[in-house]
Amino acid sequence: MKINGRHYRTIWPLPDASAVEVIDQTKLPHRFETMRLSTMEDAAQAIRSMVVRGAPLIGATAAYGLALALRDDASDEALDRAHDVLLATRPTAINLRWALKRICDAVRNRPRDARAAAAWREAAAICDEDVEICRRIGEHGLKLLRQAAASKPGETLNILTHCNAGWLATVDWGTALAPIYMAHDEGIALQIWVDETRPRNQGASLTAFELGSHGVPHAVIADNAGGHLMQAGRVDLAIVGTDRVTRNGDVANKIGTYLKALAAKDNDVPFYVALPSTTIDWTLASGDLIPIEERAASEVTQMTGRLADGSIATVEITPIGSPAANPAFDVTPARLVTGFITERGLCPASEQGLRSLFPREEEKA
Amino acid sequence: MKINGRHYRTIWPLPDASAVEVIDQTKLPHRFETMRLSTMEDAAQAIRSMVVRGAPLIGATAAYGLALALRDDASDEALDRAHDVLLATRPTAINLRWALKRICDAVRNRPRDARAAAAWREAAAICDEDVEICRRIGEHGLKLLRQAAASKPGETLNILTHCNAGWLATVDWGTALAPIYMAHDEGIALQIWVDETRPRNQGASLTAFELGSHGVPHAVIADNAGGHLMQAGRVDLAIVGTDRVTRNGDVANKIGTYLKALAAKDNDVPFYVALPSTTIDWTLASGDLIPIEERAASEVTQMTGRLADGSIATVEITPIGSPAANPAFDVTPARLVTGFITERGLCPASEQGLRSLFPREEEKA
Repeated sequence: MKINGRHYRTIWPLPDASAVEVIDQTKLPHRFETMRLSTMEDAAQAIRSMVVRGAPLIGATAAYGLALALRDDASDEALDRAHDVLLATRPTAINLRWALKRICDAVRNRPRDARAAAAWREAAAICDEDVEICRRIGEHGLKLLRQAAASKPGETLNILTHCNAGWLATVDWGTALAPIYMAHDEGIALQIWVDETRPRNQGASLTAFELGSHGVPHAVIADNAGGHLMQAGRVDLAIVGTDRVTRNGDVANKIGTYLKALAAKDNDVPFYVALPSTTIDWTLASGDLIPIEERAASEVTQMTGRLADGSIATVEITPIGSPAANPAFDVTPARLVTGFITERGLCPASEQGLRSLFPREEEKA
Repeated sequence: MKINGRHYRTIWPLPDASAVEVIDQTKLPHRFETMRLSTMEDAAQAIRSMVVRGAPLIGATAAYGLALALRDDASDEALDRAHDVLLATRPTAINLRWALKRICDAVRNRPRDARAAAAWREAAAICDEDVEICRRIGEHGLKLLRQAAASKPGETLNILTHCNAGWLATVDWGTALAPIYMAHDEGIALQIWVDETRPRNQGASLTAFELGSHGVPHAVIADNAGGHLMQAGRVDLAIVGTDRVTRNGDVANKIGTYLKALAAKDNDVPFYVALPSTTIDWTLASGDLIPIEERAASEVTQMTGRLADGSIATVEITPIGSPAANPAFDVTPARLVTGFITERGLCPASEQGLRSLFPREEEKA
């Protein structure tokens, strides 16, 4: 995607392979800044602190993190240690485990002096593949949006999304937003309802930033508002991303997704989940087995934004002494999901549906 | 309720009847400040700007506002004009219409020189009755909480609430929070999940302030989190207030209530609505007829809180140029409500249920 006319991915290696650079997403939408990750620990900290976030981008960053670790020490022990440090950075997104395994598999049978370079190449391949996968998700989702738009000719298609599943959550394009960009580019009139996505506001900060940069009409809404908009007939469909889909089609995604899926069901609004196959956890039977990350209370009690003079400030919004709880994800049962949009096409949110598109992936997991 | 050891109502007349004072709720939880309302327009502006809010308190403030108008001009024309100005301040809460009608009925057949004093007395009576009504709501709700606590002896009773339906929303006690205060005072172990209630954060600011002041254990959560907590078995019941209940039992309340009611239904969590009978709109057959207030986009795009130095600041949280939409209420269908808690006891959320407790109210409406 382009920022001020220049094309960016969310992560890119330096030409001399000494480091990778990422967009610092904690600064958006107020500042566009990049950050250099020169060591495995830099990569781990970038994931923990959500400088990078979004399941596919977490995977890509972890892959480069492992490559950076091998540059310093290519022993089996160092590989295992770095793998474990990176795997522990965040518990819910499964792409993290997938990407680390892929790097390990690519280097373990190589001589030590070839491991770092092989890992670097593999991390780059993961990134390139992610871009291609997201492009295909976009194309498959675009067919859906064309159909939906055709069902109300001359009218605007109203789409609700939660959190950020755009290009900032992936290497490029995004998952849930990829079809939206493509539909906008081919002239379909869109209005995107952007859930602000408290407590970290990835909707109000990242999705609104992406859509605004690309010129897609949108409005930020409180997370509380989506149900009412559906009741009022102002949402034609919802598309969200996911951090992990279990074998039966249950969907872990940013906290609050479940509430919107319930409202969609209650109002006959189609509710789609866009995902690369790397987000499917074939090892888990159902969503109740997914570990749900509990993050710091300060994410709830504080809010960061721009003061009138343009400077960035953090304010406390709760009474002094009031505790807060901050579960970061919830699980939307498959029964509430109209369908999955994957790089191989659409399928029902069920084991049979997933297997119809990915018949052999389970064995590889 | 007590603030720093001193008992406060949310609204009280000056001894010389020259004005009323209110707690400025836009300053909470950061500052405890009172504001003097000396004219009808002061009262109208206090309601519009949410210096006072909460359906019962809006009604009480409007009643005093009408009394203040009559002090300056007690003609029929002035009465009608002031009535219309006050009625237009906020569209959703029905207590506003009820309180204004009650003042009008009390003064219209009186000589002009007796109207202001009569209105003042009637406004005071509305306030005193509201306190008594809320106390009774508390006692009826307390029976529910005792039963719920008895069903899990030795364990903490976990209650979720949305927005603020505490003493700050009424003249004293509150509606949804009245039973919670009484249960806490008699030693029932409670944990209250406080929805922050974006965009205006009445939960994170007002409910957390109230509960903290009274020593009730609580935690602020993002509005997105309640569904997940219910899925995890961490919510025993939910109690909310309401701004208007229609004849069939549909419930208008702060935006996002509907989403929590859906989650409660999906997880077999009892979902109660606490209300004084003044909140019932006998003239409307169902909730889709309730006017839903659309408030300023700035409530979504900005957030106010305390800087590290204790000063109050407002930050912009969305990208420059991103629009926002801000519907302030939604309607929870009666089918999702386990029961109503009123000053006359509990009843099902249905026309039959409401009529069983209030057989003659409809004729008065």
